[in-house]
Amino acid sequence: MTHEVRAVGAPAENAPLERMTIERRNVLPDDVRIAIEFCGVCHSDIHTVRGDWGGVPYPLVVGHEIVGTVVEVGANVAKYSVGDTVGVGCLIKSCGECTNCRSGDDHFCQAPGHPILTYSEPDPFTPGWTTQGGYSQEIVVTQSMVVRVPDALDKAAAAPLLCAGITLYSPLKNWGAGPGKTVGIVGIGGLGHMGVKFAKALGAHTVAFTTSPEKVAMCKELGADEVIVSTNAEAMKAAAERFDLIVSTLPGDHDMNPYLNLLGINGSYVIVGAVGMMTEPFASYNLMRRHRSIAGSQIGSLRETQEMLDFCAEHNIVSDIELIDADGINAAFDRVVAGDVKFRFVIDNSTI
Amino acid sequence: MTHEVRAVGAPAENAPLERMTIERRNVLPDDVRIAIEFCGVCHSDIHTVRGDWGGVPYPLVVGHEIVGTVVEVGANVAKYSVGDTVGVGCLIKSCGECTNCRSGDDHFCQAPGHPILTYSEPDPFTPGWTTQGGYSQEIVVTQSMVVRVPDALDKAAAAPLLCAGITLYSPLKNWGAGPGKTVGIVGIGGLGHMGVKFAKALGAHTVAFTTSPEKVAMCKELGADEVIVSTNAEAMKAAAERFDLIVSTLPGDHDMNPYLNLLGINGSYVIVGAVGMMTEPFASYNLMRRHRSIAGSQIGSLRETQEMLDFCAEHNIVSDIELIDADGINAAFDRVVAGDVKFRFVIDNSTI
Repeated sequence: MTHEVRAVGAPAENAPLERMTIERRNVLPDDVRIAIEFCGVCHSDIHTVRGDWGGVPYPLVVGHEIVGTVVEVGANVAKYSVGDTVGVGCLIKSCGECTNCRSGDDHFCQAPGHPILTYSEPDPFTPGWTTQGGYSQEIVVTQSMVVRVPDALDKAAAAPLLCAGITLYSPLKNWGAGPGKTVGIVGIGGLGHMGVKFAKALGAHTVAFTTSPEKVAMCKELGADEVIVSTNAEAMKAAAERFDLIVSTLPGDHDMNPYLNLLGINGSYVIVGAVGMMTEPFASYNLMRRHRSIAGSQIGSLRETQEMLDFCAEHNIVSDIELIDADGINAAFDRVVAGDVKFRFVIDNSTI
Repeated sequence: MTHEVRAVGAPAENAPLERMTIERRNVLPDDVRIAIEFCGVCHSDIHTVRGDWGGVPYPLVVGHEIVGTVVEVGANVAKYSVGDTVGVGCLIKSCGECTNCRSGDDHFCQAPGHPILTYSEPDPFTPGWTTQGGYSQEIVVTQSMVVRVPDALDKAAAAPLLCAGITLYSPLKNWGAGPGKTVGIVGIGGLGHMGVKFAKALGAHTVAFTTSPEKVAMCKELGADEVIVSTNAEAMKAAAERFDLIVSTLPGDHDMNPYLNLLGINGSYVIVGAVGMMTEPFASYNLMRRHRSIAGSQIGSLRETQEMLDFCAEHNIVSDIELIDADGINAAFDRVVAGDVKFRFVIDNSTI
């Protein structure tokens, strides 16, 4: 009831990725079998395989920015047909029954151990297996966790939308980015460059924050109406109270106070990049004196992901990518860690 | 152009309050002169006179929960007449011209040094003076910073509404407390007991959090639909994800994580009691995994304060108080610091 597919995965902690063979289940009635054409390289992939977050069940194949073509569907699948271009993101199962799932917020599924991640978790469909991600020839996914990739989108450049894209789109929509609003995006990398594109397309006055004066022109090319170099104290001071929303892609623990001061009444500073303990003190007064908030967001629901893909087709938005072969993945990992990518590596899965 | 009034104030740091005489300006065209009948005792009064927040210009008269009767009005004052019952809260001046003032958020006035507090700040109307608060016979206040106290309210018990009341009413309204919402109030003291009353009157399912099992019955008497003893780990676990809004009156730096876990999607933990640096780490994941927020709020606008007083008249809400004479103020301060008051001391200013 299984079949083998080629993949590129980590055989052990601290080992380079290497070619390997993994098993996929044969299609169940609700399954969609997808020949993967492209898979984005997310920083989470690197954190996971390198053991930064612990608890990795090796061997492991990562990758959760998956675009491919449907090659087989189960008996219950009416929504997708062979030949359709589809995507799979960070999740491959939610319970479908809890309060949050019923309200369409499946990414906030409340069932124990849920939602199930696309890789590195106990496989709920095949006891004893670990979920294995998109650095592989194909994947079999239950239909409710599959989204349609509009034909208008370049498939390779659409792959990062499945994680980096939705990670920015969801908070921008949830916190009301749109006409008449001033929105900041902090950190213009794989996540942040999507934030600039989305905030602009949603109609907000879009401001990119970067530490690098040499990135100003590039931020404007992405669509930023303004760029603020965050190391420029004068510029930061002049921006006080101007923002309705600031989405921060800063990856680690950091001092939020300089950004809190930029928020107007009821403004929100939304963390999407920093996973861990926030230990830098913040002044409660910086919240109290303007009804400001510090918030957090994480990927998005399947419904939002489909909405985002359709929005991207309408607004001609994809990720800026560097396409790589499977053999280039270890070098690409090192370059991501060094911050040396504009803005997302995508694997051409035909080379796996 | 000035006149003397009796007061009770601090002559110096670490000195007990004592009877003294202070000067008030004679009425200007926009002024209302108020014979103070009652003034609440706020913990901020104690922090200020004891130098906890530094920079105190002694001698100083504190008090910003002021209720009294209009005894004189300036030539431009049409809204108030001699004999009206009115209130004054924490602020005696905003600029009236900045973006926030123009939108009715005068408590968030953006002018340098504004808004001006009712006590301990340079007096903008009389050069060289310090603003002096409500532990005094009378006060002269510009009409835009005066609110009307409805006749239906007990004057003494209404005094704490001007600070404790609005401090809870504003965040409850701003973050949508009402029918269908589950709202928690953390810390059931001078601030928190008003929060329970307001949340209940606004129609929310109201939950009081207290560390003291012996306070459960009292919380229910205040109107709480439920009481959770926050030291009970089982009870806290069972409350996970149930709350739309939690307003925290906890006075100092504290671990927010246990409360963040109680918030549902888009839920907010709103700090109103802790003024200072929040140094206890919080898990960004506790925000990210449900679109949760940590926010802050501070008193309210004059418009909100009037709305609150009218709401109180409609819903028969006042503070629970212990009325004291002027001679009892130093003992009352010690009891507030010890947490020994249900729930607010109010000075009978006729004894000053």
